[in-house]
Amino acid sequence: MGKVYLVGAGPGAADLLTLRAARVLGLADVVFHDALVHPEVLALASRARIVPVGKRCSQISTDQRFINRCLVEAAARYETVVRLKGGDPMVFGRAQEELDALAQHGIECEVVPGVTAALAAAADLRISLTRRGTSRSVVLATPRVGTDQQAGKWVEAVVAADTAVLYMGTGEAARLVHSLKQSGLPGNHPVAVVQSASLAGSKALYTTLDDLPRRAAEIPSGGPTLLVLGEVLREALSSDQGREQIPAELPATRANRA
Amino acid sequence: MGKVYLVGAGPGAADLLTLRAARVLGLADVVFHDALVHPEVLALASRARIVPVGKRCSQISTDQRFINRCLVEAAARYETVVRLKGGDPMVFGRAQEELDALAQHGIECEVVPGVTAALAAAADLRISLTRRGTSRSVVLATPRVGTDQQAGKWVEAVVAADTAVLYMGTGEAARLVHSLKQSGLPGNHPVAVVQSASLAGSKALYTTLDDLPRRAAEIPSGGPTLLVLGEVLREALSSDQGREQIPAELPATRANRA
Repeated sequence: MGKVYLVGAGPGAADLLTLRAARVLGLADVVFHDALVHPEVLALASRARIVPVGKRCSQISTDQRFINRCLVEAAARYETVVRLKGGDPMVFGRAQEELDALAQHGIECEVVPGVTAALAAAADLRISLTRRGTSRSVVLATPRVGTDQQAGKWVEAVVAADTAVLYMGTGEAARLVHSLKQSGLPGNHPVAVVQSASLAGSKALYTTLDDLPRRAAEIPSGGPTLLVLGEVLREALSSDQGREQIPAELPATRANRA
Repeated sequence: MGKVYLVGAGPGAADLLTLRAARVLGLADVVFHDALVHPEVLALASRARIVPVGKRCSQISTDQRFINRCLVEAAARYETVVRLKGGDPMVFGRAQEELDALAQHGIECEVVPGVTAALAAAADLRISLTRRGTSRSVVLATPRVGTDQQAGKWVEAVVAADTAVLYMGTGEAARLVHSLKQSGLPGNHPVAVVQSASLAGSKALYTTLDDLPRRAAEIPSGGPTLLVLGEVLREALSSDQGREQIPAELPATRANRA
């Protein structure tokens, strides 16, 4: 019986993988990977059969039960099985369903953590998510802005934390803003939109809750997008306002390419 | 004028560093590092002068303004300056003070994200911080459980989020529990205490809010400790209760050593 590694591929850039993840990929016999994993990361699994298993918002993705079954079956055939997930496996990665399926079959399993997207966005913006005197708490959340009018517990968590990072695109921005303002965030609350954090061609803009729906439309659809909210962004927002209105390419990304 | 890299050293284990961080360390002329950075990580900076600058709770640590000045002065003398921080620089790393000081002097700066301790704790426990139907939000917080009776905004954030990870030890457990229960968390709310996440000799135990002060005393003082709170822990708590009362060595860590 083989061992299954749930491995975080990091936020996007191939070199934001951990050394341990790189080593495990090199040993892998088979790799089941999410969409959006960098080709250079997959190339590290030089001995392995590579199996894409989808998993990206609003695109065709493989059924979770099918993935669970793949992992269990692979562990019976191979010594080293890797399930490679974007970011960190334990944050919005649906890892528990896979861990539970493996445990039910008595299959040995190890989790290799990764850099979650929120941290890459903060690095690109060069704005700390915590700050002495301003922010002692950071919430990572996936909002549900459905048709039901129920605000949901995620809104309370986002409003209560000093800084919030929402793992979602801007498609539902108007509804999101409505929910957050109803729950007490002011219209001038600072927001950053970060697209493709850590990757070449990443984009960012600073705005306010009131202006988010209008400004979000300026970012062309493409890579994965995060929203950052909080007073830690206030200074960057002030110095950004009055500049050109097109999304700024991130300086950190320019530096990485140089 | 040199360039300063604020680099995340990851949660503890040397191989949970990113590939980018390893490369930057190899280029470094000088490295200013926090306490608790693994010696094998420092060894990657083979060309560099290594300068410890403290920073650990309740131990002697270097004044932040002194560190800022060191970085500015080093950038005038060296091409590649690394400020190496435990975990991720942008989460409880006081990075903003250093970023602002560098910006004031027009010094080029790049942030290399790292795996923050919460993710390593989840990996060790093999419990996902988010879970479909149970947890859509994770808050990372540093509580302030001072002598003042004011609960503070961090309590609201911890209570509102589905899962919480507290970057703190267990020394103030009784006060912490009092604050959280006053703000609405039930006494049977599941808690995990994780010490030295990702390192050999890491320890973990599951308990409840009511039992935390008593159980916390069972963990010998030592490595950095985190508290995880939330319903995602309920099942692990149920299967753990009734077992021996000493802290369990983490299975993931046993596997890493094997």
